[in-house]
Amino acid sequence: MTKQKATNVHWHHGEISRADRARLIKQRGATLWFTGLSGSGKSTVAVALEQRLYEMGHLSYRLDGDNIRLGINKNLGFSAEDRAENIRRIGEIAKLFADTGVITLSSFISPYREDRDRVREIHGAAELTFIEVFVDCPLAEAEKRDPKGLYKKARAGEIKNFTGIDDPYEAPLNPEIHLQTADMTLEEEVETVIGYLQQNGYLGEQ
Amino acid sequence: MTKQKATNVHWHHGEISRADRARLIKQRGATLWFTGLSGSGKSTVAVALEQRLYEMGHLSYRLDGDNIRLGINKNLGFSAEDRAENIRRIGEIAKLFADTGVITLSSFISPYREDRDRVREIHGAAELTFIEVFVDCPLAEAEKRDPKGLYKKARAGEIKNFTGIDDPYEAPLNPEIHLQTADMTLEEEVETVIGYLQQNGYLGEQ
Repeated sequence: MTKQKATNVHWHHGEISRADRARLIKQRGATLWFTGLSGSGKSTVAVALEQRLYEMGHLSYRLDGDNIRLGINKNLGFSAEDRAENIRRIGEIAKLFADTGVITLSSFISPYREDRDRVREIHGAAELTFIEVFVDCPLAEAEKRDPKGLYKKARAGEIKNFTGIDDPYEAPLNPEIHLQTADMTLEEEVETVIGYLQQNGYLGEQ
Repeated sequence: MTKQKATNVHWHHGEISRADRARLIKQRGATLWFTGLSGSGKSTVAVALEQRLYEMGHLSYRLDGDNIRLGINKNLGFSAEDRAENIRRIGEIAKLFADTGVITLSSFISPYREDRDRVREIHGAAELTFIEVFVDCPLAEAEKRDPKGLYKKARAGEIKNFTGIDDPYEAPLNPEIHLQTADMTLEEEVETVIGYLQQNGYLGEQ
């Protein structure tokens, strides 16, 4: 029963910390916040990055429309107030994931600077890392791709307040990472983000 | 550049799955939902369990009042509607954590069966595991402990709708784990939960 006794002693040391978890899974949690126009390639780079991190032995998780809009935010619509609340909640969830030690890949258009800055503040207040990744694609290019046919609908007036058409996209002023997708391959984009994470000590022994 | 090519090939296989993550961190995600009266010992067992899982090399994360009520749910009050929304959001967050592969330790009074059952359904719909842990402590004992002085205030009428005093606690009918805290040591409670996780294949190689 020696083991049990030791366990008992440890219990009195209190709670497991963020640093303990980082040591356990050999990485430091952080939120990578991909922002950009619809069709800019946010999800594409997030999916590829998730794959690359996995191959490197790192735990990441993607927050996107599929698991957010249909889940925790299913009671939110598209009013200005609901859009802001949508981003706020995602920011709070990303914060919890980063606290756990997960590399969180959040990809939402998140067109307003104020909303993104609030997510940055939420992280900062908890001493957690928010990495703004500007997925910078010219509107003409994004509209040409139009993977979901949304630009076509917006141009036809079937969708209102569509970012880039009749609602503004406020580009990040000082993003930690700037991916100019018209001039980069997907692989270059992924390696740019991986390089940033490595240089700043998020990957590897903690 | 052979490595890069291989990476490229993998990308076309699509997204990293829940099973991939489970293999990576050698555990299966699940939500342990601790429910019970205020002062029943929910947080105490969650903290001790977190410590024990850590010693076993497993990644867990606690969701509790500190990181939820002050974060994502800070815009919720204590009306019946807000209480239900509080539990719903926590359930949705726990689901995302379980999907990531994390053993999630959620400790909230969550007095209503309907609210807990909804969280169970949210998990079931995503083919994720919800483990209801009834932290069963007699009211008299919880009130005697009264760690935060809340029962005293409730008895004095300073707090309204306090669970166990002037608001009901609906005990789980078929909890996966039933901890009768008056008859168990903290260590026994922890080992009961660990035993359940081991027997059901959540801990270890996946």
